[in-house]
Amino acid sequence: MALIIQKFGGTSVADPEKIKTVAKRVLKKKKEGNQMVVVLSAMSGETNRLTDFALAMQEIPDTREMDMLLSSGEQVTISLFAMAIKAMGDDCVSFLGDQVKILTDNSHTRARIESIDSDRIMETLKADKIVVVAGFQGVADNGDITTLGRGGSDTTAVALAASLRADACEIFTDVEGVYTTDPNICPKAIKVDRITYDEMLELASLGAKVLDIRSVTFAKQYNVPVHVRSTFTETEGTWVVEEEKEMEGKIVSGVTYNKNEARITISGVPDQPGIATKIFTPISDADIIVDMIIQNQDTGNGMTDMTFTVARNDYQRTIKILEAVVEEIGATGGIHGSDSITKISIVGVGMRNHSGIATTMFSVLSREGINISMISTSEIKVSCIISEKYTELAVRTLHDAFELDKESVPEEEILS
Amino acid sequence: MALIIQKFGGTSVADPEKIKTVAKRVLKKKKEGNQMVVVLSAMSGETNRLTDFALAMQEIPDTREMDMLLSSGEQVTISLFAMAIKAMGDDCVSFLGDQVKILTDNSHTRARIESIDSDRIMETLKADKIVVVAGFQGVADNGDITTLGRGGSDTTAVALAASLRADACEIFTDVEGVYTTDPNICPKAIKVDRITYDEMLELASLGAKVLDIRSVTFAKQYNVPVHVRSTFTETEGTWVVEEEKEMEGKIVSGVTYNKNEARITISGVPDQPGIATKIFTPISDADIIVDMIIQNQDTGNGMTDMTFTVARNDYQRTIKILEAVVEEIGATGGIHGSDSITKISIVGVGMRNHSGIATTMFSVLSREGINISMISTSEIKVSCIISEKYTELAVRTLHDAFELDKESVPEEEILS
Repeated sequence: MALIIQKFGGTSVADPEKIKTVAKRVLKKKKEGNQMVVVLSAMSGETNRLTDFALAMQEIPDTREMDMLLSSGEQVTISLFAMAIKAMGDDCVSFLGDQVKILTDNSHTRARIESIDSDRIMETLKADKIVVVAGFQGVADNGDITTLGRGGSDTTAVALAASLRADACEIFTDVEGVYTTDPNICPKAIKVDRITYDEMLELASLGAKVLDIRSVTFAKQYNVPVHVRSTFTETEGTWVVEEEKEMEGKIVSGVTYNKNEARITISGVPDQPGIATKIFTPISDADIIVDMIIQNQDTGNGMTDMTFTVARNDYQRTIKILEAVVEEIGATGGIHGSDSITKISIVGVGMRNHSGIATTMFSVLSREGINISMISTSEIKVSCIISEKYTELAVRTLHDAFELDKESVPEEEILS
Repeated sequence: MALIIQKFGGTSVADPEKIKTVAKRVLKKKKEGNQMVVVLSAMSGETNRLTDFALAMQEIPDTREMDMLLSSGEQVTISLFAMAIKAMGDDCVSFLGDQVKILTDNSHTRARIESIDSDRIMETLKADKIVVVAGFQGVADNGDITTLGRGGSDTTAVALAASLRADACEIFTDVEGVYTTDPNICPKAIKVDRITYDEMLELASLGAKVLDIRSVTFAKQYNVPVHVRSTFTETEGTWVVEEEKEMEGKIVSGVTYNKNEARITISGVPDQPGIATKIFTPISDADIIVDMIIQNQDTGNGMTDMTFTVARNDYQRTIKILEAVVEEIGATGGIHGSDSITKISIVGVGMRNHSGIATTMFSVLSREGINISMISTSEIKVSCIISEKYTELAVRTLHDAFELDKESVPEEEILS
C-alpha cells in the first residue's frame, strides 16, 4: 500500500463539476489500494475576485488581513471535495492549514513552512479515509493565518509528502509535464520523462512555470519524488527525482527563457573596495532582487563598469534609486540600460562532465547574428542575456543544436 | 470609556462600499471614546452561493464539511473590514471564531457556545485597536469548525458582550427596531423603545425575526443590554433589557404571528396511560419539533382526541409517520389536519398582573368571525391557532383592541 499526495490547482477545481471529476480520479487511485492525501488550491478566479475586494478597501492591503482573506478560497474547495467523495460512497475529511499545524514563520503573503504535525492526517488515513488539505496556507505561532505566496499549494503538497514520508507527490497541472522548452515557441519541444531536482531548480528559477521553485527545493531536501502531470489525461508526465546514472544520456535537458528581465549598467565607476556595497545596498533596501551581476575588469584608468539585471517591473524604480548613488560615488559614465532583453538558458546535469557546451551555445547564437550582452554560468546551466526580439529564434536554434527533440540516447552516440 | 459590541448582518456588509460605510460608523463611535468590538456576518447572498455549491456536490451535505464551507464567508468580511479601518488611518485586527476560542459543542450547523477566551481581544483593545470577530462560527474541542445556525451572528455578539462584560451590545439590522407588530400588515404598528428579555423571547420564538432566540436567552442569562437598531439611520432603536417597574405601563407589548405551522389531529385515541408517548416518540425520533399539544377530556367513551402543531414543512412527513402509529394504538377516528393555519399571539409582561387579557383576545377575534381552533398560554403570552386567511385581519384587530399604536401611558389610564 503506497501513500500518495495529489495536488490539483485552481483550474482543476474551478467549479463543482470539475471538483467531482477530481474526486473521481482520487477515488480510483484509492481503490487501487493507495492511501490518498489531496491538496487543493482555490477555484481559479477566486483569488483575483478577493484581491479586487481588498484593493477596493485599501491601496496596499495589510498583509495579515490579506492572508486572512485569501485563505478562505481553499476552505471552499476542500469542503466541497470532501462532500463529493462522501456522495460517491467513500469517506473524506478536510483540514485547514492550522488544523494540521502547517507551522510557518510570520512573513505574511510569503511565509515559509517550518513544520507539519502529521498525527491527525495519519489517524484519518488509518481510518481508511481520504484526507484533503487546504493548499497555500499555514499558521504562524501566534495563531495568525499565513499564506505561502503564489504557487504555494505545490509547496504544501511537497512539504506534506516529506512530512508523511509519502511514496510519491503528484502535481496535477494544465500541461503534460516538463518540456525541453516552451512548446508554444518551439513545436519540436518534447516532454521529458525524468529530470533531476537540480535541473528542475534551474528551470524553475529561470522562468519555467510548471513547478514553484520552493517546492522543488523542499523535494530535493527531503528526496520526495515529484510527478508533474496533466489533470486532463491519464498519460505519465515528468518525474522530478534524484540524479541517476542513466540520466546523463543527455548533456542538455532543456532550453528556457525569461522575458521578465531588465539590464542596467553604471559606467565610469571608481574601482575601489566597497563600491559594490554602495551600489547594491540601497537597491536591496528597496526590496528589489538583483539577478546577474557583472563587473568588468579595470581597464587601467581606475574605472570600471557594473552591469546587472533586475525584474522588469523594478526597472524604473531601480534607475531612480541609482541616480542618487551615481552622484554619491562619482560614477562618471552615468546609467544606461534596457528593459527589452531576455535571459536565455540551457540546463543539464550532463554539462558537469563535458566541456565546450557554453562555447557551442555562444557560437550557435552568433551564427544567427544574435549578440550576447551578459553571460552567467553555474555547474549545470549557461545563461545569456540577448535582445528580446531574438527570443523565439534563439530558443529554436538552441533546441535544434543540442538535439533536444531526440529521445534520450547513450552519450557515446551523441559525442561520437 | 465604554466597551461596545456592534454586530452588522449580511445586508450591511453586502459589498466593499457598504463595508466602508460600516467601518466609518464604527470608527466614529470609537472616536467618541469607546472601545469597539465588531461582529460581522458573511456578505448577503454568499451563504446561498456556497449552499448551492454544496448541494451540487452532495444531496444532503455532510454537516462538518458544511460548517467548513460556510464559515469561509465571514472570513472575507472581517478581513475586508480590518483593511477599511486601516485605510482610514486607525488600526484593527480580525479574528476567526477559533482564534478567540469561541468554544462550542460539536453539533455541526447548530452548535452552542460554551465559552470564549477574551484574552486576545482585551489585549488588542488595550493596544487601542478595533477588534472585528467573525460571527456565526466557533470551534469544537477537537479543532473542527462549527457554526451556530442562521442568525448565529447575533448569538456571537451577545456571547462576546457577556464574556467581555461589555456595556452594550448593538445589533444593526435593516429595520429600525422591534415593532408592536409587523408594519407590513398593520400600518399603525409603532417602534417599541424598551422591551424585556422575556417579552423578546416570546416574540422571537413566536416568529418575529428581528433577533435570534438564542441570542436573547444569552442576553437574559448574562444581563446584557441589547440595542436593536437600523444600519441605515442614526435613530435609536429598541433596547432589550431586564424588566423595570415602569415597563408595566403596557399590558400587551406586541402582536405576532407565525404562518409556518400545521395542525394535526388524531381522533378516537384510546385514553390510556402512555398513549402520548406512543404518539410523540416516533415524531421526535424523526427530528420533528412539536409545538402546541392539546388533549381533549375523555368524553365518557374511553376515547380522546390529540391535536398538536408542527412546522409546516414537516406536515406531510408527520402524517406519514402517524399512519403506522394510528394502526398500532388503534385510534378509530383517523388523522386529519390542516397546513393553512396561523398561530397569532399577544405578548406582554404586564399580563401577569391582569386578568381578562385572554378573554379580550378571544372576544375580539370572535367579533370578527374568526374561529379559534387551539389555544396555548404562558405567563406573558396568549397564542391562538386560526385559519391562515384571517391572519392580517386578526393582527390589525388585536393591535387596535390593545391600543398598541398609543405611546406608553400609565396603566391606571388604560384600565380606568
